[in-house]
Amino acid sequence: MRNKNEFAKTPPRGWNSYDYYNTAVTEEEVKRAADYMASHLLPYGYEYVVIDIEWYANDADTDDRYQYLPFGNNEMDAYGRFQPSPKRFPSSADGSGFTKLAAYVHEKGLKFGIHILRGIPREAAHRHLPLYDSTATAADIADPASICGWNPDMYGVRNTPEGQHYYDTLIQMYADWGVDFIKCDDICDSWTYRPSNHNPFLGWEETRMLHRAIMKCGRPIVLSLSPGPAQLPRAWEYAHNANMWRITDDFWDDWSLLKPMFERCEVWQNHVSPGCYPDCDMLPVGKLGGRFPGHPERQTNFSKEEQKTMMSLWCLFGAPLMIGADLLSLDPDTLSLLTNREILSLDDGKHRGVQVKRSGTEAVWASMGEDKSLVLGLFNLGDSDAQIRTDLSDLAEADVDAEAVPDGTSFRELWGEAPAVFAGGIGAMVPAHGVRVFRIL
Amino acid sequence: MRNKNEFAKTPPRGWNSYDYYNTAVTEEEVKRAADYMASHLLPYGYEYVVIDIEWYANDADTDDRYQYLPFGNNEMDAYGRFQPSPKRFPSSADGSGFTKLAAYVHEKGLKFGIHILRGIPREAAHRHLPLYDSTATAADIADPASICGWNPDMYGVRNTPEGQHYYDTLIQMYADWGVDFIKCDDICDSWTYRPSNHNPFLGWEETRMLHRAIMKCGRPIVLSLSPGPAQLPRAWEYAHNANMWRITDDFWDDWSLLKPMFERCEVWQNHVSPGCYPDCDMLPVGKLGGRFPGHPERQTNFSKEEQKTMMSLWCLFGAPLMIGADLLSLDPDTLSLLTNREILSLDDGKHRGVQVKRSGTEAVWASMGEDKSLVLGLFNLGDSDAQIRTDLSDLAEADVDAEAVPDGTSFRELWGEAPAVFAGGIGAMVPAHGVRVFRIL
Amino acid sequence: MRNKNEFAKTPPRGWNSYDYYNTAVTEEEVKRAADYMASHLLPYGYEYVVIDIEWYANDADTDDRYQYLPFGNNEMDAYGRFQPSPKRFPSSADGSGFTKLAAYVHEKGLKFGIHILRGIPREAAHRHLPLYDSTATAADIADPASICGWNPDMYGVRNTPEGQHYYDTLIQMYADWGVDFIKCDDICDSWTYRPSNHNPFLGWEETRMLHRAIMKCGRPIVLSLSPGPAQLPRAWEYAHNANMWRITDDFWDDWSLLKPMFERCEVWQNHVSPGCYPDCDMLPVGKLGGRFPGHPERQTNFSKEEQKTMMSLWCLFGAPLMIGADLLSLDPDTLSLLTNREILSLDDGKHRGVQVKRSGTEAVWASMGEDKSLVLGLFNLGDSDAQIRTDLSDLAEADVDAEAVPDGTSFRELWGEAPAVFAGGIGAMVPAHGVRVFRIL
Amino acid sequence: MRNKNEFAKTPPRGWNSYDYYNTAVTEEEVKRAADYMASHLLPYGYEYVVIDIEWYANDADTDDRYQYLPFGNNEMDAYGRFQPSPKRFPSSADGSGFTKLAAYVHEKGLKFGIHILRGIPREAAHRHLPLYDSTATAADIADPASICGWNPDMYGVRNTPEGQHYYDTLIQMYADWGVDFIKCDDICDSWTYRPSNHNPFLGWEETRMLHRAIMKCGRPIVLSLSPGPAQLPRAWEYAHNANMWRITDDFWDDWSLLKPMFERCEVWQNHVSPGCYPDCDMLPVGKLGGRFPGHPERQTNFSKEEQKTMMSLWCLFGAPLMIGADLLSLDPDTLSLLTNREILSLDDGKHRGVQVKRSGTEAVWASMGEDKSLVLGLFNLGDSDAQIRTDLSDLAEADVDAEAVPDGTSFRELWGEAPAVFAGGIGAMVPAHGVRVFRIL
Repeated sequence: MRNKNEFAKTPPRGWNSYDYYNTAVTEEEVKRAADYMASHLLPYGYEYVVIDIEWYANDADTDDRYQYLPFGNNEMDAYGRFQPSPKRFPSSADGSGFTKLAAYVHEKGLKFGIHILRGIPREAAHRHLPLYDSTATAADIADPASICGWNPDMYGVRNTPEGQHYYDTLIQMYADWGVDFIKCDDICDSWTYRPSNHNPFLGWEETRMLHRAIMKCGRPIVLSLSPGPAQLPRAWEYAHNANMWRITDDFWDDWSLLKPMFERCEVWQNHVSPGCYPDCDMLPVGKLGGRFPGHPERQTNFSKEEQKTMMSLWCLFGAPLMIGADLLSLDPDTLSLLTNREILSLDDGKHRGVQVKRSGTEAVWASMGEDKSLVLGLFNLGDSDAQIRTDLSDLAEADVDAEAVPDGTSFRELWGEAPAVFAGGIGAMVPAHGVRVFRIL
Repeated sequence: MRNKNEFAKTPPRGWNSYDYYNTAVTEEEVKRAADYMASHLLPYGYEYVVIDIEWYANDADTDDRYQYLPFGNNEMDAYGRFQPSPKRFPSSADGSGFTKLAAYVHEKGLKFGIHILRGIPREAAHRHLPLYDSTATAADIADPASICGWNPDMYGVRNTPEGQHYYDTLIQMYADWGVDFIKCDDICDSWTYRPSNHNPFLGWEETRMLHRAIMKCGRPIVLSLSPGPAQLPRAWEYAHNANMWRITDDFWDDWSLLKPMFERCEVWQNHVSPGCYPDCDMLPVGKLGGRFPGHPERQTNFSKEEQKTMMSLWCLFGAPLMIGADLLSLDPDTLSLLTNREILSLDDGKHRGVQVKRSGTEAVWASMGEDKSLVLGLFNLGDSDAQIRTDLSDLAEADVDAEAVPDGTSFRELWGEAPAVFAGGIGAMVPAHGVRVFRIL
Repeated sequence: MRNKNEFAKTPPRGWNSYDYYNTAVTEEEVKRAADYMASHLLPYGYEYVVIDIEWYANDADTDDRYQYLPFGNNEMDAYGRFQPSPKRFPSSADGSGFTKLAAYVHEKGLKFGIHILRGIPREAAHRHLPLYDSTATAADIADPASICGWNPDMYGVRNTPEGQHYYDTLIQMYADWGVDFIKCDDICDSWTYRPSNHNPFLGWEETRMLHRAIMKCGRPIVLSLSPGPAQLPRAWEYAHNANMWRITDDFWDDWSLLKPMFERCEVWQNHVSPGCYPDCDMLPVGKLGGRFPGHPERQTNFSKEEQKTMMSLWCLFGAPLMIGADLLSLDPDTLSLLTNREILSLDDGKHRGVQVKRSGTEAVWASMGEDKSLVLGLFNLGDSDAQIRTDLSDLAEADVDAEAVPDGTSFRELWGEAPAVFAGGIGAMVPAHGVRVFRIL
Repeated sequence: MRNKNEFAKTPPRGWNSYDYYNTAVTEEEVKRAADYMASHLLPYGYEYVVIDIEWYANDADTDDRYQYLPFGNNEMDAYGRFQPSPKRFPSSADGSGFTKLAAYVHEKGLKFGIHILRGIPREAAHRHLPLYDSTATAADIADPASICGWNPDMYGVRNTPEGQHYYDTLIQMYADWGVDFIKCDDICDSWTYRPSNHNPFLGWEETRMLHRAIMKCGRPIVLSLSPGPAQLPRAWEYAHNANMWRITDDFWDDWSLLKPMFERCEVWQNHVSPGCYPDCDMLPVGKLGGRFPGHPERQTNFSKEEQKTMMSLWCLFGAPLMIGADLLSLDPDTLSLLTNREILSLDDGKHRGVQVKRSGTEAVWASMGEDKSLVLGLFNLGDSDAQIRTDLSDLAEADVDAEAVPDGTSFRELWGEAPAVFAGGIGAMVPAHGVRVFRIL
């Protein structure tokens, strides 16, 4: 097990609890989500069940003011390692952590993931708790100047042998629990520690420390870095230490966030390869926002066209697919959106997607599989319906070989719309914010 | 007592323990410094004895790695208020804080000052300690995202009624101890929270909270803000809430730090008025650095000429004068530098000093007292001796009225050098990094 | 004539052609404006008649696309010095420049001003025209990398003896014409050359060159620098070389521009002194925008309350007053606004105005004259009517001495509103965006 | 001819006149360089002879103050198109431009390249010269606000039909001359117009205009963009409009410039593909600086080890190779450096080079050809000799498949040093600033 790229040979697919459950998901809800995934989504490659932030918070969902309660009541073991809150995850009450829940998920043929924050609990440092299997204490490795700007739980960990030991034993505990996927937060971009500041961004070192710990733990744990936007000049660093890295700040169901993803996918397209995936964040579709204080549950604000645009772009680009919807109330339309086999097949780690052109009002992507079958995505980024077209010359410049396509060739549309006929290129009328994806074979 | 400007009608003068004693000064040493000040310096207006950072640290001076020990052993009362470490300040062992030491200082005819850091101890928040005379706790008012970039002790305090109450009772405790001067740190400029960042700089609110607390406490406490450089667009804010604000980062005995002070004094010169003093930091003269791990004690690196340049600029500009030297080993030359009555008389809050001209190699300042006596400081900022001169036209443009001065008038030199004769202006040969200060009467 | 501050002992008042006539004012229109000023405004201190940008452009007003025509037909003498366009300024056809028009203005008891752009005409450099009274050519002194970002006419001038000679002879020509006021543009702030860039901002050198030329020319020409915002750290530089400097980008009749002027006046208030005036730009009142292609003439968009707010702030702050309105169609209300003797009396260079407090919704200014008469301006910066009040403690902190004012003292309102009675302070109901100015005597 | 990538299927190799001849190369010298290239370098793939900046300047080399003479005497035709200076390029005196010189170069089996600056001559705009085959004039398309910060010759061209026509006819003229390679300057990065400024960087539009003109001209002209550093987020734009783009500012023979190239190659390595080459600038080896006023001719300051480091990195990375040396005095060692067939074979557009690891003191690159032969470059970036090593795990993480290599396998060293034996990886003692390149077969 020498290469972390083998842990995720194709872009990971699954479900994440955050978009619907915020910090307050329960064991029962996770099991029901796993049940649903196993029966409805696993055949389409969705396999990761991921519990997002604050699973250790005993007071999650008890306060209407703060999402992350400062100086809150968090479940922690004697070595300063957070444990699942037994109030929400009863099977952990015996000290076995997520072992039983992970086993449940695994039995379904699925994989189990958790969210963590870079660092060590502040409380462990202030209490000088001993580190597991060490004579050092949390206070020895915690850096009191290395905090997260938006979450009060952790201090960053110093890059010392003791700091590495902490990460090694922490990851080993997760591996022992049966964790297959770690989404680490406050590590990819930081509000507080930007390059212009006096303090360097300490996240770089901790990314490497996490990676080393994973390579030692004996379990192929996928490492996903948040939040975004990731920093383009550090692309090599991300690719050598992680499997996924967020290229956007939190992504929600708003066209003003979706449209800029075309620019982000443009700049990151050369950085997609097996085991290395720029990450567009969760798919905010279906029912969302069930447990955000002050906000009612809602059906996604994305129109049907926008949802197809998102799925098409993510798949042409080669991004991971993490569903944000509440799986327990997933409607047939959303299920259908998420399980379009032909669209999903583009996102198999073997197709190479490239941007053919882009302006403020349109974008075109091409994808070529190992069988040389050509797929073209025509996106209308404007606010009214429009004819979108791409010609042989565009394709040639994007190094997409279409010269041999005879005029008159018919291209199928993968979302069930009318086919298009090749005539020196392909064009179609596309609704505002919408897409047409054409395939030659 | 309506106006904080009355608390410091002239630029404060005194001594600060930091430059020599770092975080480790003791009660006995402070008393000896007070003794010395009373007998040698008080006649020259030096009256503040200021104990700098970490007087509450029980483990100061016990570790050779860190200046500010993270998660250290700090003396704190039941309400989360730091108290003097009884190991170094034995008179505080009875819970009376600095009361007895302040009384000793007051008996000498001097004033007593302390350093504080904006905020509330992190430890108090993590332990959920009750606030004094309140049902709220430290955790209710501490902002876990508001930290100091270089010191691990505190969290910033939220601008709420409970937060103001904390500052009110804290300042009342200091007033009860007999504190006359507070140097508050991590509040004037911040490494971590710059305007470009997501988080606003929380120091602004806490400056106002401190000022309100002082105006309520019944004691005329001088408020000094650190560190610098202060932000020029916030000049009005500083002037309405504090008596002093640092216009430079830590100032030490290095020409590369002294030369830029001419630019800082240029930009801040219009902001000097009674009770409002841009602060050039301590005077690093005499014996310095007695307790900095890894560095031996040293005599100031400033040459004699540079020392006179510093004193002359500070006094012409109108800055506070806080001696950094170890008073207990003050040599006659340094004492003489600090007690030049004529130079000191320029820094009386009644003279108005103005920059007449400045280039990369020279600067000229003028000062006019209420008696209209003209003083001109000719500074050589270059690295070799040079003729420095200022003419009637320079003075006119700086609104210094010298037209009535007859050619042939002799000007005395205030550091004991040769006089100069007026001839359409004044000129003199000035040593590299040196100064000549001429006075007409 | 040693001191440029004597050229403008009080803040200049007058009229500028730009806000109404854009680049296209004619000699006849300037004369009519002078006539009107002499008879209606001169008694109130308005005396400068200023012709703004492009008076040399023969093709001004002939094109509907560009305000400043690139490679346009500009009137220029054999030495590369722009001359008035004889098409619009017929009296200049004999080569006498503005001599005759200036004389007309002077005969009315008024003063004559013109706008210039820093530098030398690009055309003169490309044609290698000789400099007046020199063996050098325009190409020798023009810096081809020093351009204006928004106007195509000029190249910056190198700081060499030949460059200074150019400015000396140029200013001498203006002095010979009878010019009393020069508004120099592209010199105070620059879009193109910001400090972060490779090229330094060349305007600093040219400011000094212009100042030197003015001091040599034998005529007390007021120097006004544009555009803004001026850079606060360069305040000393402005004050030693110019009489006015713009502290805002172009100011127009829009509340979103007026409200931020309270912040600008706050930061510049310590930099107002006789001969040194931070400049708030023209007063966009009355009829505006008569000759801006594509935009119809309009009555100012400022409400009556906003106009009073502007006049009150400018006068309390101590700013120059340059009317933007078309004088030939000035309505009685606007005339009344501009000629409120009591408000104008605050702006006499002897009052010292200070900000007492400011928030997002209110501001209070105080002004104290030599006779110690106290004036208080209460501004409502919010969008609905509100009670605005200032107390003794506010005033004390702003160093305004009001402790001796007995409760019950009546204060007149200077815009004719109801008086207020002192009771530990002064308060009044103030309309949204409006002001009340109270005076004790 | 649909795809510009076909114009340069492998990284271009050749010689550029700048590093030795500055702005002053002559026709005779270019011919002699071509002679040399044909006989000594063409067998190694070097084929482009490129005349760098200011070939139109009649006064090049006549002034010791400026490299680019402002308002200089430049050879220009009646349509505002620069022509070769007949003083230095006599064959152009008949108005045939570079036709005859290009023919000479072509006869040698070589290709002919020239340098241009984005835009249209300023002089053409100020003289309102007609555009070729158009009713528009230079003044109609020149943007007077779009200048180069360091060269005074040009104005940027507006993106209008007339502007495109200008570029179309200009490129057609070059194609008619026989130009095969255009290095366009002031278009890839700009000192003056950075993103933070008011003015957008106009170079983007002109890059597209140039590309369109080239695709129309009927000749496969390679387009190279300067200066650097290119902007990473615009990588797609560069790759779709040009064949080469500079990733560094001017590169010279100084280790402080060579070491950072390892970082630049890291960030650009994913953007190398046939027809798309991030450009590391000329190879400053051999005799340099023959015609730079005030600087004597010199032999490259690079040590032999540094030269090998440079060649190895450029070739492993896949960069173009443009020789900076004076070819007429090329010494045997430098010739040998430039003609190492095995090193050159890595830079064939078919190998894929990847960075395996990098720190402040070492870097490792790997390259895999179509025949799967593995090459490893071990670079010592430190200032003293050191053991540099790379292990199976490093290689695995960089997706270099070396697991099948048996321990004990011998690797040849491509610069003639001792071979290395594989033992879980490869290591070697490498001199300071030096390199060892090992090949398995």
